[in-house]
Amino acid sequence: MKVVCPGSFDPITNGHLDIIERAAQQFDEVVVLVTGNPQKTSGLFTLEERVELIREAVAPWPSVSVEWWSSLLVDYTSSHGVDAIVKGLRSSLDYEYELPMAQMNRRLSGIDTLFFFTSPQWGYISSTLLKEVARYGGAIADLVPPGVAAAIERKWGTQGTD
Amino acid sequence: MKVVCPGSFDPITNGHLDIIERAAQQFDEVVVLVTGNPQKTSGLFTLEERVELIREAVAPWPSVSVEWWSSLLVDYTSSHGVDAIVKGLRSSLDYEYELPMAQMNRRLSGIDTLFFFTSPQWGYISSTLLKEVARYGGAIADLVPPGVAAAIERKWGTQGTD
Amino acid sequence: MKVVCPGSFDPITNGHLDIIERAAQQFDEVVVLVTGNPQKTSGLFTLEERVELIREAVAPWPSVSVEWWSSLLVDYTSSHGVDAIVKGLRSSLDYEYELPMAQMNRRLSGIDTLFFFTSPQWGYISSTLLKEVARYGGAIADLVPPGVAAAIERKWGTQGTD
Amino acid sequence: MKVVCPGSFDPITNGHLDIIERAAQQFDEVVVLVTGNPQKTSGLFTLEERVELIREAVAPWPSVSVEWWSSLLVDYTSSHGVDAIVKGLRSSLDYEYELPMAQMNRRLSGIDTLFFFTSPQWGYISSTLLKEVARYGGAIADLVPPGVAAAIERKWGTQGTD
Amino acid sequence: MKVVCPGSFDPITNGHLDIIERAAQQFDEVVVLVTGNPQKTSGLFTLEERVELIREAVAPWPSVSVEWWSSLLVDYTSSHGVDAIVKGLRSSLDYEYELPMAQMNRRLSGIDTLFFFTSPQWGYISSTLLKEVARYGGAIADLVPPGVAAAIERKWGTQGTD
Amino acid sequence: MKVVCPGSFDPITNGHLDIIERAAQQFDEVVVLVTGNPQKTSGLFTLEERVELIREAVAPWPSVSVEWWSSLLVDYTSSHGVDAIVKGLRSSLDYEYELPMAQMNRRLSGIDTLFFFTSPQWGYISSTLLKEVARYGGAIADLVPPGVAAAIERKWGTQGTD
Repeated sequence: MKVVCPGSFDPITNGHLDIIERAAQQFDEVVVLVTGNPQKTSGLFTLEERVELIREAVAPWPSVSVEWWSSLLVDYTSSHGVDAIVKGLRSSLDYEYELPMAQMNRRLSGIDTLFFFTSPQWGYISSTLLKEVARYGGAIADLVPPGVAAAIERKWGTQGTD
Repeated sequence: MKVVCPGSFDPITNGHLDIIERAAQQFDEVVVLVTGNPQKTSGLFTLEERVELIREAVAPWPSVSVEWWSSLLVDYTSSHGVDAIVKGLRSSLDYEYELPMAQMNRRLSGIDTLFFFTSPQWGYISSTLLKEVARYGGAIADLVPPGVAAAIERKWGTQGTD
Repeated sequence: MKVVCPGSFDPITNGHLDIIERAAQQFDEVVVLVTGNPQKTSGLFTLEERVELIREAVAPWPSVSVEWWSSLLVDYTSSHGVDAIVKGLRSSLDYEYELPMAQMNRRLSGIDTLFFFTSPQWGYISSTLLKEVARYGGAIADLVPPGVAAAIERKWGTQGTD
Repeated sequence: MKVVCPGSFDPITNGHLDIIERAAQQFDEVVVLVTGNPQKTSGLFTLEERVELIREAVAPWPSVSVEWWSSLLVDYTSSHGVDAIVKGLRSSLDYEYELPMAQMNRRLSGIDTLFFFTSPQWGYISSTLLKEVARYGGAIADLVPPGVAAAIERKWGTQGTD
Repeated sequence: MKVVCPGSFDPITNGHLDIIERAAQQFDEVVVLVTGNPQKTSGLFTLEERVELIREAVAPWPSVSVEWWSSLLVDYTSSHGVDAIVKGLRSSLDYEYELPMAQMNRRLSGIDTLFFFTSPQWGYISSTLLKEVARYGGAIADLVPPGVAAAIERKWGTQGTD
Repeated sequence: MKVVCPGSFDPITNGHLDIIERAAQQFDEVVVLVTGNPQKTSGLFTLEERVELIREAVAPWPSVSVEWWSSLLVDYTSSHGVDAIVKGLRSSLDYEYELPMAQMNRRLSGIDTLFFFTSPQWGYISSTLLKEVARYGGAIADLVPPGVAAAIERKWGTQGTD
């Protein structure tokens, strides 16, 4: 069974990694799919940078691969033999936001979405909150993979350590 | 009894039409009111275009009329003899967002808001999600009135068919 | 337009009255319908007592009548020419609980449900919480119509005054 | 991959079947597990009756089996080689109720829970609401498998037809 | 500043202790108040047993005391010089349930309620879920203070260890 | 005990003042902290203007002071001897948004967050909705302190009276 974990991953956090690792324990093949517009430069990292940071972080799990995609998610899943979409839920609010997309994707192509709950220790992390903290010099080294902490430090000069 | 269904309707979807049709079954007169700033050009369709697309879609129901308004909603309801505001709720999250506006409108002018729940088959549609799908060529013809599908296709060259 | 406000009303509170009064401002005819099983004696008041307490409280509004019903709500609405069901929402949680019933009623008979939001000052009242407070002698006189405060006092010897 | 769909299933509804069918499309083996205490007689159907009603309903899917269990769910999953628990979510409220159990099960035995969203057309059904409607003679034949409608009719003399 | 942490505590869990400890770090005096009816025997532990189990668990914090109360909470707070009520929130759903009581208490006596969020690692524990797990022999020793695990074992013969 | 009430306060409303006043009743010292970037000019009022408007509004309470801060909130709390952060909750949705920040702040520096529920009569106000209403000439004089109503009128020529 092959699943895809889509997201903007700008950048990947330990919360994302928790879901990817648990998906890798359940399914034969996991594709982490960075979605976004390569022309848009409003993110902290480019799509290629995000892919590289994730590749480094998922290296321990051989069944996990990483790609980027700038079109409809269902076009990817239909053309790449994906069996299901996997998403993590941090809260019931996340569910409210994910449900319309999950229903739309199923209507567009028949593909289903499987939700994991985020492990409690990572429930408060989002890429957005992480960047807010890091931008002001807050310690984020224990919230992201080491490569991400280093990359943020190169961007912003953040110490990134406790 | 005369009610108003306010919204930005950029563009109208089958979810909106479901609420408008059910309001027309209950009340003598229904005004669909496109709210927004005519100077703002950030939407997909202009206010006038939105009004036209809705007029075409509600043509079968003689008690439904369509207008646009760029000032406070309660100024419209007070000056046009409107008895109540009608809104559709897709989820409890919608309720959280609609409640402060409904309470504010009641405080400002005494007008009350009546909520319909969205029919289950349209619960996942929003104008925003619809545009995201259509922009990448996803099929949206069964989510909007025919005139809207055609108008989106003219804008973006979307096929808009299954 | 004729609507029904169903509920167990054991007993009616000022929160219920707020919805009934606002419904009476919008619609030609409002039936307050006490639903329950007349054989069940687990409530604080019998169905007949509840009907009497509501009749006294709604006496100022001539378009409001009160009845009880021990079968399916849609059997009442279909046989009595009711156009819509009216319910009050105190919170998004109320919406989660009311939605399945509203959808079921619409599927069973086609009847729609219109939701009012509870006025902020009554949002914290429920018949259950009210009875809990009154049972221990808490002041509830400003949360219920005068007849209800008196009836509770007769049942439990509650002072029921501030 | 082998998953278990636990529940009280008193009785199974089309909403349950929707999740079971979609689980059967994703996973090699699906066990529908009726959980409950065989000594408790408060349900409408006994555990054995529920198992029989489900077996009849899932007969078309050879990879789906049905059993009952009266102890901890994680004792079943650990002793029967189950890879994951599968649950359906009708709403964000369901998520709030399921999350503590999912976290507890993972803590007790390491087993993870995968959530499917309920298909919109079944979102309003629960066994509890279904029984309430059926008890008063409401039509439930299109909400449950045919065997369940017949079994309820035998219990209560419900017509069970539109 | 003196606060009260009310609850049924049948029995106290590490989730409760987390809130009590954090309250003790903020306020001069913390009273853990076991509320309930001493005549009601439906709980697992009597009010006195619950008080004893909490006393043992909070022994390390000299500013924390434990009592029980069988009347209105605001009668306690008014007669014992309490400045505020303290409650823990495990989720937004908890907030929905706590809000009406907090508003009622403020209306009845003017006392305010301060909410702490539960630490993520205890968010999934409730006394109810804990007892369900323990009743079937699940390991609960790391979810409750040692005295509680021992007391449950005496009641039910639960091993209570991993 | 010294607490901080952080926010953007653009501008302060009666809802904010309600929380500040209740915090002042509980704690020895309350700092209202306007957070934001002094270089950013997208707000209606500058940070300094917001501080001035709050100072005028909190003048009756000697234990309340007002400052602004453009770095991490926990850097302020750690360097100024703050014991806890205080936030108001208008709804369970507010809780979903505040929780990740509260958990992050506790992880970064150990500081805890205490939540008050907003008084029902102010639950529907937000600075954003207030500005939307005022911009179109809606009456907001009873939703903000007098100095704020006057300042908005100077900015926009809003009458700001009922």
